Order: sequence, then structure tokens, then C-alpha cells
Amino acid sequence: MIFSDPASVAVVGASDNPAKWGHWLARGALVGHDRRAVHLVNRGGGAVLGRPTVRSLSELDEAPELVVLAVPAAHVPAVVDEALAVGVRGFVGITSGIDDEVIHRIREAGARLLGPNCLGVFDAATSLHLAWGRFQAGSLGVVSQSGQVGLEIAGLAASSGLGVSRFVSVGNQADVTATEALLDLVSHSLTTVVGVYLESFGPGIVTAMSALRAAGKPVVLLTVGSSVAAQEAALTHTGALTSSLDVVDAACRRVGAVRVTTPAALVDLAAVLTSGVPRGRRVGVVSDSGGQGAIAADLLAAKGLTVPPLSSVDALPAGASRRNPVDLAGAGERDLANYARAVEVLARGGEVDSVVLSGYFGSYGPDTPSLESAEVAVASQICSLATETGISVVVHSMREDSAAVRALRAGGVPVQHTIERAVASLANANRLGSNEVEVAPRTATTTPFRPGYLAARELLGFTQFPRAHAVTTAADISRTTLRAPFALKADWLAHKGEHGGVKTNLTDPATAFEEMRARLGPGTYVLEEMDTREHTVELIIGAKRDPSFGPVVLVGLGGVHAELFKDTTTELAPVTPSVAQEMLARLTCAPLLSGWRGAPAPDVTALADVIARLSEMLTARPDLAEIELNPVRVGPDGVLAVDALIIPSEDDTSGQRVPDRP
Amino acid sequence: MIFSDPASVAVVGASDNPAKWGHWLARGALVGHDRRAVHLVNRGGGAVLGRPTVRSLSELDEAPELVVLAVPAAHVPAVVDEALAVGVRGFVGITSGIDDEVIHRIREAGARLLGPNCLGVFDAATSLHLAWGRFQAGSLGVVSQSGQVGLEIAGLAASSGLGVSRFVSVGNQADVTATEALLDLVSHSLTTVVGVYLESFGPGIVTAMSALRAAGKPVVLLTVGSSVAAQEAALTHTGALTSSLDVVDAACRRVGAVRVTTPAALVDLAAVLTSGVPRGRRVGVVSDSGGQGAIAADLLAAKGLTVPPLSSVDALPAGASRRNPVDLAGAGERDLANYARAVEVLARGGEVDSVVLSGYFGSYGPDTPSLESAEVAVASQICSLATETGISVVVHSMREDSAAVRALRAGGVPVQHTIERAVASLANANRLGSNEVEVAPRTATTTPFRPGYLAARELLGFTQFPRAHAVTTAADISRTTLRAPFALKADWLAHKGEHGGVKTNLTDPATAFEEMRARLGPGTYVLEEMDTREHTVELIIGAKRDPSFGPVVLVGLGGVHAELFKDTTTELAPVTPSVAQEMLARLTCAPLLSGWRGAPAPDVTALADVIARLSEMLTARPDLAEIELNPVRVGPDGVLAVDALIIPSEDDTSGQRVPDRP
Repeated sequence: MIFSDPASVAVVGASDNPAKWGHWLARGALVGHDRRAVHLVNRGGGAVLGRPTVRSLSELDEAPELVVLAVPAAHVPAVVDEALAVGVRGFVGITSGIDDEVIHRIREAGARLLGPNCLGVFDAATSLHLAWGRFQAGSLGVVSQSGQVGLEIAGLAASSGLGVSRFVSVGNQADVTATEALLDLVSHSLTTVVGVYLESFGPGIVTAMSALRAAGKPVVLLTVGSSVAAQEAALTHTGALTSSLDVVDAACRRVGAVRVTTPAALVDLAAVLTSGVPRGRRVGVVSDSGGQGAIAADLLAAKGLTVPPLSSVDALPAGASRRNPVDLAGAGERDLANYARAVEVLARGGEVDSVVLSGYFGSYGPDTPSLESAEVAVASQICSLATETGISVVVHSMREDSAAVRALRAGGVPVQHTIERAVASLANANRLGSNEVEVAPRTATTTPFRPGYLAARELLGFTQFPRAHAVTTAADISRTTLRAPFALKADWLAHKGEHGGVKTNLTDPATAFEEMRARLGPGTYVLEEMDTREHTVELIIGAKRDPSFGPVVLVGLGGVHAELFKDTTTELAPVTPSVAQEMLARLTCAPLLSGWRGAPAPDVTALADVIARLSEMLTARPDLAEIELNPVRVGPDGVLAVDALIIPSEDDTSGQRVPDRP
Repeated sequence: MIFSDPASVAVVGASDNPAKWGHWLARGALVGHDRRAVHLVNRGGGAVLGRPTVRSLSELDEAPELVVLAVPAAHVPAVVDEALAVGVRGFVGITSGIDDEVIHRIREAGARLLGPNCLGVFDAATSLHLAWGRFQAGSLGVVSQSGQVGLEIAGLAASSGLGVSRFVSVGNQADVTATEALLDLVSHSLTTVVGVYLESFGPGIVTAMSALRAAGKPVVLLTVGSSVAAQEAALTHTGALTSSLDVVDAACRRVGAVRVTTPAALVDLAAVLTSGVPRGRRVGVVSDSGGQGAIAADLLAAKGLTVPPLSSVDALPAGASRRNPVDLAGAGERDLANYARAVEVLARGGEVDSVVLSGYFGSYGPDTPSLESAEVAVASQICSLATETGISVVVHSMREDSAAVRALRAGGVPVQHTIERAVASLANANRLGSNEVEVAPRTATTTPFRPGYLAARELLGFTQFPRAHAVTTAADISRTTLRAPFALKADWLAHKGEHGGVKTNLTDPATAFEEMRARLGPGTYVLEEMDTREHTVELIIGAKRDPSFGPVVLVGLGGVHAELFKDTTTELAPVTPSVAQEMLARLTCAPLLSGWRGAPAPDVTALADVIARLSEMLTARPDLAEIELNPVRVGPDGVLAVDALIIPSEDDTSGQRVPDRP
């Protein structure tokens, strides 16, 4: 491919001045001169880095396949025209401020542009180094919307021993997109794990991440911000409660990726994933110091991992505590091989999924040179144990660098200088989901959307509502066969509470009706039985369309709790009932759903089915923008939706928008 | 003092073998040989580190003031006896397993022992280096119950440029305690900030931390115990119980200290505090990359800091975004002085309390040597700005080390290699409370404790309860003037709910009484009005005695929320009403207490007074172990305690224990 292994390259703007970008790009390009023709172009002429230059592309005998644009923006149009004229097929647009007209000409000519405003591209497999910065060859594929963030990732990958297989700074994505750059990595054999920094999500991004995971290359996604504007525009609580990051997380869970918040977290997690995904959350801790073991155990627990008690610890070295964390209590210092023995007991014991070794290991050699070779040998044993058992091992060493630290990294065991980075990397690895198959939504009703609560009840036939009927006159109330207490609702109001269009706990509905009609005017009102069942839990279930990721479904504890305690969870829609059950289990209020303190358990199976059905309906019906059941109450005998709201899509042509929000 | 500047020292067990502790301790002791006599004792004789040794202390002409014990435990008794006989005043017990009898002899002789099972002591002011490990002189005083954790702190302090002023590994604290070691630092002039690792808290620890803060030396406390595993590890290490972390945090708030969870967090925070305490939570972010600025801003917000919009940004360099985070967008690269200009605009603008500079700064010199001197000059300007304005500046640099990084650190500006460490250090600095004056509890009632709910209502006269009266017969019920709905309670049961001793929402109390008396037998029952006020919030208020820190008071949202959502907060008792208000403001449910969505606000002033009064009563009455109002309901017209429970102290001799909990 033209951006991964061009037959020939030219750097336009090559410079001998080390403070100029053209200097770095020329130097990088020359790294690959054994593999491809490298031309340096400088309009002043003369030598650059001891090599002859030409003054323009037209002076070359042959057209280079790929051209690096490292000249001021004002010169770009002429350079591009000349390049296209001689048949150049691709451009790396380092220069910022390349105007749209020039980009248009490149695309019209069937050529491709990376950038503009990017730091370039690096490929360890093909000695392609058309990028600012230094790279250490390795296994992490990097795609970054920010050049500087990409460089920070590459730098951390180098110092952690992970290295970079391919680096693509996509800049403004005027032509080549991040999605394309990610798809390129699917068949890139050096790349075993992918790190991507994105500030926005273009079409196909979920497909690209899914394809990478299917190829055995998990994606670690670094992104920022949450779109306040999108949340403010939301017409339902669902919209307001779902941040864009919740949706990104849902997308990651669906395709088996993980979102992180910093470059270091990205690299540290990638280092863990190159040697496999932990099978579960149980962690064994080994340290030669009780204090360091306890600190590690605290951090692991705070991150949701478990440090379970151990039973099969007879083989632990004498003097070591037979608990988890395993405190070698000086046995490590007496005989370094005890570190490997302790790791072996944990890795082979079947009681943990990963091992953290924390503390002094890695420092013996530097502090006592006579111990260096023994320490390196133990490091190699630990690496072999990790490989053989498939147990993830992460080391926290008080020493940033030593022969043993390098031996561990070379053997695929990540080493961190702070315990928080070691723990965070394992915790993040446990957030990696599996790449799920698409869920096919069941056929949804074709009943057209009509506004109003009664119409919504009809459309949402997959859930039960309390008994109710329409009321337009006082006589309708007097004839009711419903039982008290009642709720009275103005059928046509989407946001009844805000407009005084709902009254609850009524025993005298006739008076309430007269009052409400006097205030809101004639129209259709709804008299409804209250849900008076005991042992119910009140939730909110909603679905909406995310502009980047499509339909999503949200579940949360109802009332003030969703807002105050942020007790909600989001998935890409549709979800199966089984995924819906996983959503419910993730809520902080999950204990309420399994019978709080001996109370009878609510019917979670029925609840999960309602969630799944609602998610399917929004997915299958593009005429609907949002659906919300709020609140919905689940008790031991089933689900009752106590209020519902449906918002039609903006492009719905029925003209029947929500009346109280013009 | 004998452990900070002894006139003469002897290392017993000095060794020429670099793998032995006695080698390190001898080498360290010799660092101070210009200041004091240093004797090396080796029972084999011969030279150690090129110096003559003696075979035993009795061969010395003069008794050394301080002796380091670096011999096997079996040899310790004889060495100690010999030392005491010649008049040694102090021992550093490196050896573990020194038995109690020997320790007793040391104390009987009026001598002191540091340890045993410790790594020793280091003092940068007096060239005292009687400890295993390497130390860089600096300003952080370190006291550690775990030698290894102390060494990790010292190592991180060295690499961050902070350095160590004094290091005391207190080991098993058989004689010298952590509290004493901390008090020693009050007048230690090199020490400007103190880091302490403790697994248990002895008497006087609060006083010691408070004295340090009063001397202008804030304390950063690292402890463990948030996970069960950590508590077990702590038990094996010291045999001491780990205090509840909520109580530790309360103690820290009271004395102006901060608890952290890792050695790196301790050192990073200490580095910020050496140059002052941020005045508030507003942070300005500067970066030459929009991505890095956005990542920093996200992390700051996630840690509870704010990145406010800026108004006074006219002086920002051309091309820089006029937002916060300030994105220099290449202006930094064009002219390095723009970094200092941007920091100056923020530091002098009065709109932020601290500044984070994130990204490439610190890398210019290493990548482009011609820029090194300019980068160092800008670093110095940034340090001057921090000093002049009192604004905390923290730098995140993609470069771990460079001339500019060293210049920043030398000038008192902390530099971190990851943005998470930079942000965490600022966030932790904002948790530093002020050193509060003692609160004198008001005189509490002297009414003696009597068991039962009615007696508790009487004792807790500082709060209102619903109207109620005692009931022993059905006739008592029929004569009641209370209004429905009612609650009926078995007066004598402490845990009424668990024993079926409470019924609520009764309209027919006579039937309920007959049923309950048939089940629980004759006795005193309480008929009580239910609290039917609208717009109330239900809370729990309790006070108990912590074994390490004394009386504490807790407030939380009532019902299932305190347990599910952990929405509680704790302070050392007693608290003033104003501190009680701060406690309420810290709860996640605080918005409910200021009038949720336009509802009338509950009477928080009355609530805070009840909290203060309850905290005072437990403090003033040692005969009471615990007091709990649960639930207590606050509405716009005041507070009603709906249930109350008082547990007398174990040593209360009245014999009137709670009856249903033998």
C-alpha cells in the first residue's frame, strides 16, 4: 500500500537545519534507502544530510510514488500540481493549512493524502519513517488524530519496551481517515495490539475495531470530552443521562475494545494485552514486603479486582505468609529464586487469573552487582511461567531500568515503575469484552407513530401498563371501574410533570380532573390505576440514536437516583435479554433486583425482556428517535411501565411532533 | 538527639561482603566520619571498606553513643549487654527477631531502641546515614512503618528531585514510636513536608500531625486497609489492627493532612506542597497540542477540579486558542518564550489557582540541542512566575529527564512524566484541610443511661421526635390522642426491625398491638405518630468511638442509599454546626438538601445542630459507646428523629446492656 511500503519517496522541503521539520523527515526517509529510492527536494539546492538534493520534483528521472509535503503552506499548491503532473500517487501532508482546493485536486487525480496537519507515518516492517520523532520497532499499531498525543504514545511504548509496529498520524483526515488507517492494520503482521486516539468518530469505526479484534488485535481507545451540546439537545431523560463517553464505552464493549483516559494507560494496557487477556478478575499478589503487598491489594480492590484467599500454598517458600497478598517476608532476599517459586505457586494453582509482583525485584542487580545474573535468570523463569500458564503477570519494580527489568520486558512481562500503573493496566485488561455477534432485531410493530400517552402505550405493546382509560368529561370519571388510588394525566403532554399535567395518589379523581381541565383546557386525559404492589423497584429504560454510533439503550435506577448517583448503564442497541441482564447486574442498585434483605426478588427476566424489546423497536424503526419508559416498576410478579414517551425522528414527515416542546 | 546527630556511632556486624546488610550500614556510617567518630565492629576482625575494625565494643576506648545492630538475632543479647555495660545510649535495631527481654533491658537502662526489624535512619542535616539504601538530600521527611515502602518513597523522592531530609524506619516500634519520630521533625529545619507510611495508629498521632502542620509542614499519610486482603496483610506485618479509612480521612481533615494510597502519590503531592498549597480548585491548562490539553482537562474534571473559562486572555500568544485549556497550537514551537507567556497570563490573571503545563515542553533541548539553553531559560521564567504569584504550577513532560526538566525541579516546579501523576498531585493538594482548633463540647446532660427507646428519646433531648406515649394495655391505645397513621414499637428492643418489634403506617393500632404483644409478650410498647410531612429527606446520623482516633460522627443518606451508594461522611467528634454543614455538603445527595427541583429546602441549619449536639454528647459522655438516629427526617420545618438507639460503653457497670444482643 502506498502509505505502508511505497516503492519510492520524495521529501519536499528537506533541510539541513536540525530545527526544521524538513530535517527530521529527510533523516527519517533515509532510514529506508536500502529498500526504496529516497529523493530529497530543496528549492535552494545543495546537500542535505550529506546527500544531493534536487530543486523540484520535475528534475527527477522517475516520479516518486509518495511525496512528503514539508514546505510552507503557500508553496503547497505548486508542489502538488507538479507532483500530480509527474504521476505521484500519494502525499503525506505535514504542512498545516493546505486548502480545500488543493485537496480536491489530489482526490480528483485519484491520488491519496494523509493529513494535512499530521506528523506522518512510520512502519517498522518496511523501514518507512516519514514522520517527525523517534520510534522503536515493536508490536503496537498507533493511529492518532493528534500528532503530539500519538508521539507521546510512541515514546511511552518505547520506554516500556513495547515499541511501535506502525504509526499513522491522520491529522485533519481530509482524505485518508482513521477508519481506513485502522483497517490497514488488520493484515499488518507486526501489529498485535492497536492504540488509537480519536476526538471524533467517523463512519465505520465500530466495524474497523471489530475487524481488528476478529483478527486477534484488541483495540485500546483513547478519547476525550463529552458533548455537552448533544446532551442539552436531548428531549428525554435518557438523552440527558447518556453521555457520549457512555456510548463510546458501549461500543467498546460490543467490539471487544477498551477505552482509556491517558496515553500511559493506553500503552500499559497494550503491554498486558500483547501477552494475552486475563481470564478473570482474581489477582495473586507477591511481594517481599508486607507493606507493598498491602498497597497493591488495596489498589486492586479499589479497581474492582479481587485478591482472593488461597488454599494451595504449601509450596510457598519457608517464611512467606500463606495469604494473598503473599508476603515473602525476606525469603525473596535470602534466595531470589523464591520470587519465581511464589509466582509459580500462584500461576499454577488455578486460584488466580493474573499475578502482580510488587516491590524490590529488579533492583538486586543494580544495588548488588554480584546478584545481577541470578536476578536475570529469575526474571526469565517468571516470563516462562507466564507464557506456559497463560496467566498474566505484571511487575511493579522500584527500579525503572535494570538488566532484570529488561529481561522481563523482553520476555513479554510488562514492568511498571509505579504500582498504580501496574494495577490500572490489569484492571483495564479486565474491561476488554468479547467481540459479540450482531443481534438481529425481531420484527417490530408497523403501527405508525401517533403522539400522546395512550398511543405510546399501544405502540409499546411489549410491556404491561397499569389499567387506564381516556377521559374527556366528568361523566367518564364517574363511570370508571378502575380502583383507587388513581393517577390523572394529560394525554398530549410529553413532559407532564413540568406542565402540571400529572396528578398521583388520587382518591377523588373527579375533583382533580375539574382542576386540571380548568388549568390545561379541554382535551384527552388519562385516568390510570396506581401501581401499589409491594417490593417493587423503580427504574428508567430508554433508547435513543447516537449521531456516531447509532441506536443505544439505557437502564438506570429511577427517581432521583439516576441523576444524583449516576446509576445508569448504556449499550449499543439492540441488546439480547441476556445482555440486558448483564446491564442490570452492572448497576450499583443490582442488589435491589435480587431481593434486598430477604424481600422477594423482582422479575428480572421479564424486565430484561422489556429492555431487549425496547432496544429492538428503536433499532428497527427509523421513524422513532427516542423511546422512554420512566418510571418502569418491576416487582416479583412482573413489569409495569408507569409512564412512557416516544419522540419521532426529526425527518419524520407526519408533522406530529411533541406539542409542548416546539 | 541521639537518633539525629549522635556524637559517635558503631556498626556491629560491619562487613566487607557487598551482599550483606552490615556492608551497606558500614558504608553509610562512614559518610559521616568527618562529623563524628565511626567505629566498625566485626567479630572476625580485619578491615572493612579499607578501615580497621574491632572485634567487640569493649575493645573501643570510648563508648559510642549510638550502636547499629546488624548481626544475626542470636548474637544480639550479648552485643546489647556489652553495649549497655560500656554506656551506649541508643540502638538502631536492623536485625529482626530481637526478643522482648532484650528490649526490656535496653529500656530499663534508660537507653533507646529504633526498631527492631527496621531499615535504619538517615539525616541529611547531620550526614547521618545509618540505613540500608541510597538517599538524595532534600526536603521530605519520611517516617515509615515498613522499611521497603519507606525506601520506595525515598527512591521516588530522589528521582523527582524532591529528596529526603530525614528518613526514619520505625520497624516494630518496640521503643521509639512513629509518633515520636514525627514529633522530632517539627523542629527539623531541612524538613518542609512530611511523608508517613503507617499500618496502625498509636496514641498521639493526631497531635503529632497537627504539630507538624502548625509548624508549616503538611503531612502526607500513606496507609492501607481499604481491602480485606490489605487488612490481613497488615495483620501479618505488625499484629496491629488497621483503622477504618473513613476515620483516618476524618483525622487528616481535622489536622490538615492528606491521605494517599501509593508511594508515588505521596511523593508527587509532597513535591507540590513544598512550593505551597493551591488556594482553590480552578486550574488553567497550557499545551502546544489540543489533544494533550483536552486529556488534561478531562482528567482534572474527573478528579473534581475545574477548568474554568477565561476572560483575561488578550495577552496570549498569537495563534493560541483563547479557551481553557489554552492550546498554543504551534506557537510554543515557534517561540519557546510563548510557553512562559501563556503561564504568565494564567498565573497573573486571577482566574485560576494552579496551572498545568502538559506535553512536549522539556523535550526541545534533547531533540534539538540548539534549543536547550532557550528551553532552560523558559523553565526558569516559569519557576519565577510560580514563586512570584504563589500559583501552583505542575508540568507534565513527555521527557523524563532533560536540562529543562531539571531546571523546573530545581526551581520548585514539580515535573511528572505522565499527566495522571500531575493531575493527581494537584487534586490531592486540594484535599489538604486547614489545621482546625479543638472544639470544646457543650455541657451534656448527666441523665444516666437507661435502656429502651423511650429513655433514649429522653436522653437525646437536643432533637425532636414524633409525638408518642407508652402502651402496656389495649386500653392505653384506645385513650390515645395521637393522630394516624401510627407506628408501634417494642420499647426494649434495640434492633426492632430484625425482631418484628416495629410496625408502621398503622391506622388500626389496637389490632397491631394485640398481634405484637401475642408474639413478643407483655412489656412496654410505644405508640408513635408517623412523620407525614412532605418534602422531607431521610438520613442517618450516628456517633461511635474509634479505638485509635476516639469519638467520630457519621452522616449519610438514609434507607438503602447509605449502603448501596456509600453516601456517608465521617468526622472526628465533636463537630461544630458549621463543620456539620460541610459534612452535609459533601454528601452526593446534597442537592436534595437545598431543595431538589424547586421543592422547598429542608431546614439544614436545624439538621446541622442535631449533628453537632449528638457529636458533643458522645464526646462528653464516656459511658456511651454509640448513639444513632436512624432514620432522622429533615423537612422545611425542622428535624424529626424517627428512631434512636444508644449503646452504653462495655465498661459501663450499670448492667443495663441492650437486651436483644447479649
